[in-house]
Amino acid sequence: RRARPVREVLFFPSRPCCIEALLAEAAEPGVPARPCPCPLPSGDTALSRLVRRLLSARRSLDLCLFSFSCPQLARAVQLLHRRGVRVRLVTDAQYMGLHGSQIGRLRHAGIQVRHDQHSGYMHHKFAIVDRRMLITGSLNWTTQAIQSNRENVLVVEDAEYVKAFQEEFERIWEEYNPANYSFF
Amino acid sequence: RRARPVREVLFFPSRPCCIEALLAEAAEPGVPARPCPCPLPSGDTALSRLVRRLLSARRSLDLCLFSFSCPQLARAVQLLHRRGVRVRLVTDAQYMGLHGSQIGRLRHAGIQVRHDQHSGYMHHKFAIVDRRMLITGSLNWTTQAIQSNRENVLVVEDAEYVKAFQEEFERIWEEYNPANYSFF
Repeated sequence: RRARPVREVLFFPSRPCCIEALLAEAAEPGVPARPCPCPLPSGDTALSRLVRRLLSARRSLDLCLFSFSCPQLARAVQLLHRRGVRVRLVTDAQYMGLHGSQIGRLRHAGIQVRHDQHSGYMHHKFAIVDRRMLITGSLNWTTQAIQSNRENVLVVEDAEYVKAFQEEFERIWEEYNPANYSFF
Repeated sequence: RRARPVREVLFFPSRPCCIEALLAEAAEPGVPARPCPCPLPSGDTALSRLVRRLLSARRSLDLCLFSFSCPQLARAVQLLHRRGVRVRLVTDAQYMGLHGSQIGRLRHAGIQVRHDQHSGYMHHKFAIVDRRMLITGSLNWTTQAIQSNRENVLVVEDAEYVKAFQEEFERIWEEYNPANYSFF
């Protein structure tokens, strides 16, 4: 356990970067990653920091995301799922079907996904790592947002904020239980 | 000066509510507000809390908003401007022209507005009150988002977070200086 709670602010756009080394290290800790043939640098960027925080999950990852189409972030989430982390994903019904959405792929991989049935948007963009670290901001998990938009993400290990968002997550998770769906 | 720094989490959708009494009190402190004839309740809601925080501004209000079409919030901002608070507003070029946008009205009232010239979105949704209180989250300042969407807003009086966002605001404010626009 680190001594000082994480308090980090990430601003986007992020320089494009290769996260293969981060994913490889998370998949097989200690095994040196093979060099990636892609031309992207693997430096310290807002995206690589976000990925690092996600990959720190050991037990659970609760995701509440309006839009999720970034393949790099989807690979990180899939890797956590394979590693035995309990991943739950809430998303927006209108946006999950859009071209490029990663929701189908994550569902196919066995990750639990729930969505709304409303006309209003499920517009949150937050993640909770191990019921301990809150990642929240303006950023939708799309490559366009990461590389082109002005965006912010707060990363906070703060029991009070985590509690508020965890309770919101659980409320939504229950409300979007498929057992409650209505079919017309 | 209050003793304990503000730490508040607001979740939306908010019940619709009347904010006339809040605006009247802010416009003429101490003068009893005339009862509003509208049928909306004036209770404690996420929207009324957000408005209260904004109306606490005494010296400056820096706004960095992707989309701003909520007339109630526009009235609060205009009131602060009239009261002598220095309001600066950064927004997204593509969204400022949409139907219902309040940007034209605020500009017309004499508020300084700057916008991007990029294809990427200026997607932030934050406000800084008196360089002291940060208001940030997923919420665009639209009536649809306030009344229909699942959204979050954090209100934090925290020097470290405020500093990071204030610096981002100043960077964007300078970058979007009309003197730097290019015309083709």
